[in-house]
Amino acid sequence: MNPDLEHSINSLRILSVDMISIAKSGHPGICLGAAPIIYSLYAHHLMINPSDPNWFNRDRFVLSAGHASALLYATLFMAGYDITIDDLVNFRRIGSKCPGHPEYGVTPGVEVSTGPLGQGFANAVGMAIAEKYIAATIEEELPKQKLIDYHVYCLASDGDLMEGVAMEAAEIASNFELDNLIVLYDSNDVTLDGPLSDASNKSDDIIKRFQGLGWEVDFVPEGNDIKAIDDAITRAKYNKKPTLIEIKTVIGRGSVNQGKNTVHGKPLSKEDMIELRKKYKIATSSMEITENSVNYMRESIKKRMGSIYKDWTNLYNDVKERANENLRKVFEFLEKGDIGATFDANKFKIQNDYNEELRESNSKIMNIISERTKFFLGGSADLAVSCHTALYKEISFTKKYNTGRNISFGVREHAMGSILNGMALSGLRVFGSTFLTFSDYLKPAIRMSAMMNLPVTYIFTHDSIAVGQDGPTHEPIEQLTMLRSIPNLVVLRPCDINEVIGCWDYIINNRRPVALVLSKEEAHVLAGTKGSEVSKGAYIIKPEQTRIDCVLVSTGIDFTTTYLLSEELRAKGVDLRLVSMPSMELFLSQSKEYQESIIPSNAKVFTIEAGSTLGWYKIASKDCAIGVDEFGCSGLKDDVLKKMNFDYDSIINYIEQRLNK
Amino acid sequence: MNPDLEHSINSLRILSVDMISIAKSGHPGICLGAAPIIYSLYAHHLMINPSDPNWFNRDRFVLSAGHASALLYATLFMAGYDITIDDLVNFRRIGSKCPGHPEYGVTPGVEVSTGPLGQGFANAVGMAIAEKYIAATIEEELPKQKLIDYHVYCLASDGDLMEGVAMEAAEIASNFELDNLIVLYDSNDVTLDGPLSDASNKSDDIIKRFQGLGWEVDFVPEGNDIKAIDDAITRAKYNKKPTLIEIKTVIGRGSVNQGKNTVHGKPLSKEDMIELRKKYKIATSSMEITENSVNYMRESIKKRMGSIYKDWTNLYNDVKERANENLRKVFEFLEKGDIGATFDANKFKIQNDYNEELRESNSKIMNIISERTKFFLGGSADLAVSCHTALYKEISFTKKYNTGRNISFGVREHAMGSILNGMALSGLRVFGSTFLTFSDYLKPAIRMSAMMNLPVTYIFTHDSIAVGQDGPTHEPIEQLTMLRSIPNLVVLRPCDINEVIGCWDYIINNRRPVALVLSKEEAHVLAGTKGSEVSKGAYIIKPEQTRIDCVLVSTGIDFTTTYLLSEELRAKGVDLRLVSMPSMELFLSQSKEYQESIIPSNAKVFTIEAGSTLGWYKIASKDCAIGVDEFGCSGLKDDVLKKMNFDYDSIINYIEQRLNK
Repeated sequence: MNPDLEHSINSLRILSVDMISIAKSGHPGICLGAAPIIYSLYAHHLMINPSDPNWFNRDRFVLSAGHASALLYATLFMAGYDITIDDLVNFRRIGSKCPGHPEYGVTPGVEVSTGPLGQGFANAVGMAIAEKYIAATIEEELPKQKLIDYHVYCLASDGDLMEGVAMEAAEIASNFELDNLIVLYDSNDVTLDGPLSDASNKSDDIIKRFQGLGWEVDFVPEGNDIKAIDDAITRAKYNKKPTLIEIKTVIGRGSVNQGKNTVHGKPLSKEDMIELRKKYKIATSSMEITENSVNYMRESIKKRMGSIYKDWTNLYNDVKERANENLRKVFEFLEKGDIGATFDANKFKIQNDYNEELRESNSKIMNIISERTKFFLGGSADLAVSCHTALYKEISFTKKYNTGRNISFGVREHAMGSILNGMALSGLRVFGSTFLTFSDYLKPAIRMSAMMNLPVTYIFTHDSIAVGQDGPTHEPIEQLTMLRSIPNLVVLRPCDINEVIGCWDYIINNRRPVALVLSKEEAHVLAGTKGSEVSKGAYIIKPEQTRIDCVLVSTGIDFTTTYLLSEELRAKGVDLRLVSMPSMELFLSQSKEYQESIIPSNAKVFTIEAGSTLGWYKIASKDCAIGVDEFGCSGLKDDVLKKMNFDYDSIINYIEQRLNK
Repeated sequence: MNPDLEHSINSLRILSVDMISIAKSGHPGICLGAAPIIYSLYAHHLMINPSDPNWFNRDRFVLSAGHASALLYATLFMAGYDITIDDLVNFRRIGSKCPGHPEYGVTPGVEVSTGPLGQGFANAVGMAIAEKYIAATIEEELPKQKLIDYHVYCLASDGDLMEGVAMEAAEIASNFELDNLIVLYDSNDVTLDGPLSDASNKSDDIIKRFQGLGWEVDFVPEGNDIKAIDDAITRAKYNKKPTLIEIKTVIGRGSVNQGKNTVHGKPLSKEDMIELRKKYKIATSSMEITENSVNYMRESIKKRMGSIYKDWTNLYNDVKERANENLRKVFEFLEKGDIGATFDANKFKIQNDYNEELRESNSKIMNIISERTKFFLGGSADLAVSCHTALYKEISFTKKYNTGRNISFGVREHAMGSILNGMALSGLRVFGSTFLTFSDYLKPAIRMSAMMNLPVTYIFTHDSIAVGQDGPTHEPIEQLTMLRSIPNLVVLRPCDINEVIGCWDYIINNRRPVALVLSKEEAHVLAGTKGSEVSKGAYIIKPEQTRIDCVLVSTGIDFTTTYLLSEELRAKGVDLRLVSMPSMELFLSQSKEYQESIIPSNAKVFTIEAGSTLGWYKIASKDCAIGVDEFGCSGLKDDVLKKMNFDYDSIINYIEQRLNK
């Protein structure tokens, strides 16, 4: 190997393990093993401009093996991103640009937060779908120019490929023949607990499995052979399918514990570090790096990129000058993430006698939005037919039709969530649907949407025990509480079409992760519901007459029951206030004054929702959260509601008993 | 085909779709398509005795495609299980023996609750591991007799095999070379939303993928060819690896909509049913069945089983009579699920100055238990080294050593959970470990443990933002609330070794699904903690002196902080009561009197736990739940706690402010 290149790679190795030693925490094994891979990628392949990390047409790199964070930060520093040696020294310290695992929005050049294994792989698939979609959308207007044309690379570990979400996503990538996706598999035969063979059969052959999936595969037998890595990546760029390159590496290469799990997750000893410096011929002290090694890498990038970035910018500006209305919208999107759609709940007028399943109302609104912007798309985990979430004027996204806006994720909920995250990271407004009870399957992905504050809309239908005949496995109980407990996620459960419209007003006008929860039952429009109030989380539907005997708070389809029983209670002389609360989070984020004006703190407050009551006691008075805290059962809807003490009679009796106490 | 056999199969088909018509709900597509598969299995292969559905040495059948419930119930009826035509008529009605999806404990012959796709496949892998373990354990005592020797069969749909959990479990099955596992893949090229090709590449070849995994594979091109199905199953029994048999079927076979997704999930029309009866030459009315068809199937089973059941029972009784102490324990286990271990928290005496990481204390207790019973085993999703959950006197479970009690699940959390469910369904007391933040990945499996009330212990360590340097992806916030919201799950978060001992007292003496949540920090033994009180959920550590200015309630490692600040508050003149609450659920299941005796309803109650506060307001006074409601950050533990306002000073200041209000 060219000695300058070798020195540059070895400097990267030592710098990244130095960071871990100083932080007294981190994962040296993968840094020493995979350094040549990530070096090769940044120095010899990625189409990037470290001075403009948000350049839209850059190649994306996803470090699915997020525990290699030190290696990534050291690489970004060497490549010339806005990261200093001081930043590297502060690895894993509070407020650092270099946190424990890669965090989106914190470090220039970091495309996505990773760490929980498997998800990065699926995020990369989402980014590759987004590239295909955006490129195809632009090509419709600009058929001769390849304005958008980038690759998505992903570094995945053995652990990543063990996670089911990665296999789900790999199947989807195969179906769409994502030739812009290249996965570099750091194959070191070791995981945290020991040799890979403890947990995976030696005859379990990843190459064969990915071939079976319809991927292109390649193999590099020696992870230090940078030419072989380079050649494999170069070949992959011309493949007509997604490519997996298995690269055999040695975990902790050069350390006394190389090849063993003990080198995976703890800083190396002082003696080990001294020996390592010798082996790799690095004479600098800790956290020092030769100018030569840095310059060599930066020059490699500069030379290779040549005028690519400048040419692209010129082309872009040129095209932009002559752009028509449609193209201008695209540029607004590329530059600002503006999807160019307005949506105002006040502009809708719904008749008083309107009556419809909420999933159907939702479908209508979604289809109105899809007409207003091309940057709204999504799909379902094989429940579009039941959730009613197809954009029916749009075609399906397929390997042939990349402008399609209906994505068939198959029964792969977790991959759906992680792919949506990847698409949202590319600026798209995306949605995905399944039944509320199956939100469990994609919880890890929802958490990441929330953590990265991505504008992903999860649409969860069939939202309570009212599902009935499908029984307890299909009847959500705890899922609303689960979703509401996720920091930064907005959970919306509208009660009628007016509130559904309000939900979409909130979604379109705010870039937030949202779970939109819908029943499959018919909902009449209820007097007093207002879409424009949804963003406040809760509002008064009917005020009390003179005093407040109690406040009734309810959400979603259960509000219809609450509305009806509130009339009976009134007729019996109970003076009450009726409140609709489509979003607990949004309500609790209002001013104390607003909250007090809706739910006075001294009032007796009943909350009524067909799900776990655990999360309701921030609102409800003692013993006044009415819900369902046991698993449901299979039967006709009304029978199930009765059995679970959540029918009209049971609820009103409970309230009356409490009021008479 | 033999006309009697053909009539019997067609009767099964019609009976199952009749059930769906009467229920006006269900999934006829798979019933018409897969009837020959399930018929063949029950009539010609399963080693069963319908009169003794709990016979320990029976073959297990898992309907992973749970939506084929009608087909399963009709089959069980025809096979002679204790199910009547009336039961079938009540399909999907409340209280029926035939609920919407199969439910464990409700229907004789149903081995496991299924419906959420993919999990049944993994449950079957768990059952196959259990068979291997139990058989090997008995063989140690009885080397010459094959007392336990059964197969586990699973019917899986296209949707099942799309779910990541199925692929994870398939990898594990390969690693352990589970030759007792036979998966019948109902390959009909259709899913709910449309043709399979919408969501899966046609070049995505399941056969090739399973070959790549190291499975044996077989293929039956015509799903109506019962001889071919029989032959394939027979071959599979002799394989030395797990086997997948792909059987090509036609969804809704015979219906006007055969081969289309529209036949998947709705009852057939009247006209369709009339034509179907003609096609299948079934002259009986709805829900009638010829004696001939039933007798034919029952006779097939009877003839084939011959004296197998009787011979086994004789052998069993014979061996039992001469059994030594060790074997007697095995028989207690087989007959009553009694694991033969006692565990009494009162028998442990811990020194006052004891100080240890809780995961280490937990490890000691687990290893004590493992010495007391052979029926306690488990593993980790590649975090045994970090969670400290290895049984260090025991070997690993491998393809060669089936008596091993440490299972390497790999980084496959969801499969781990579903496999543990399968093992628990076989009577074993099992555990599985990962970090608390990754409990997200196995939420769907935990829900099923809870729904089936299985004695699975999930051990979740690294339980709060105190994880520190690994950052927000690794810092649980909402997970405790998520777990507590699951009906029937017991969440335990002990504060020191005394309570860890109490947790295991609860676990061993109750057959319940449990999440045991542990910090990785050192915990001193705190004066007043008692293992014997854990089962009450909460108890007083220090009473007030004369009045109750406030009650402080805390859990886990956060109790140490609470303990310390309670002393400072006392010194400042605050008269308070200090309560440890290792389990909110267990506390809330105590009598109202007990609850009142610990936490008086008129007291000001502060709760202190480093996680989401959403679920704490059932206990805490308004604005008095102290916790963490935002995602954490990466840094040294103390820096993170401070930044998240969960350090000692922030907590005590907050309490003092509230008390002065």
